[in-house]
Amino acid sequence: MELDLAIASKRDARQYDPRPLPEGVLTRILDAGRLSGSARNDQQWQFVVATDASDRARLGRAAYSPGNLVGAPVVVAIVIRGREMQAFDAGRAAQNMMLAAWGEGVVSCPNGIAEPAVAADVLGLDEGWRTAIMLSLGYPARPRDPTRRDPEEWSRRARRRPLAESVRYL
Amino acid sequence: MELDLAIASKRDARQYDPRPLPEGVLTRILDAGRLSGSARNDQQWQFVVATDASDRARLGRAAYSPGNLVGAPVVVAIVIRGREMQAFDAGRAAQNMMLAAWGEGVVSCPNGIAEPAVAADVLGLDEGWRTAIMLSLGYPARPRDPTRRDPEEWSRRARRRPLAESVRYL
Repeated sequence: MELDLAIASKRDARQYDPRPLPEGVLTRILDAGRLSGSARNDQQWQFVVATDASDRARLGRAAYSPGNLVGAPVVVAIVIRGREMQAFDAGRAAQNMMLAAWGEGVVSCPNGIAEPAVAADVLGLDEGWRTAIMLSLGYPARPRDPTRRDPEEWSRRARRRPLAESVRYL
Repeated sequence: MELDLAIASKRDARQYDPRPLPEGVLTRILDAGRLSGSARNDQQWQFVVATDASDRARLGRAAYSPGNLVGAPVVVAIVIRGREMQAFDAGRAAQNMMLAAWGEGVVSCPNGIAEPAVAADVLGLDEGWRTAIMLSLGYPARPRDPTRRDPEEWSRRARRRPLAESVRYL
């Protein structure tokens, strides 16, 4: 997929087809996270993959929206350690993974952590580590063809504030 | 540019050609930030653009690496308000902008905030807002053609830990 089309047409999606992701697809998604930049290139993250239904159900108990994790064939938790900036770098890695997923026809959604201790327990985190986000991933329940619109049209239709409201010039 | 090539070949870069970015290029970069997803789609961010050399020098005083901002023709500060998750969403928006920039041949680097009060003063932030990051952007001082390698080769050459060290399976 072309980069500009991927960026413009990507939407966070919470309804998944239950079929698993092929191993090569999942590996390419994870590699996009690995390739993401981080402060001083310190890569203070791990990507913890859960595919088993009981693991995903347990992770669901740590999330604000358990159904996203129960219904997705794959969950990738981004766990981090160290200073606050790591949340920013986790966001970079997550966006890389979700865009790469979309390029493979896979939709996704970030899931915030309502119960950090539950997430840490299920994910088996060592002390000093915390869960930045849990990405739910899967083929879409209702597939849509991104090429049916051009990037400009996807941008116009995005449910976002107009650019003039988000941008200010010094 | 193809999405997978963009993700694999993007490197944070700190040396810029001084020529300004055409308005259309900058607008497309900013729009990629606008299009990024955020928790509950709340978009609690603003993108503050600085192109004037004196503004960039003043912003440099708020950064760990002032030279990046002094030497870049454009700085985009992502300012946020509200809960801690905003840093994650700022990371998503930043990655979208930096990938879109790279698709336009523009390189970039996130700059962390050493002096939040200085940044807030220069950026004219209202109470409750803070600076998540300042992106320095410009055409590269040493242009490189991303298409000279395929995405797999860019991935292999990336200065990152191997995937097996960043990924764990439950």
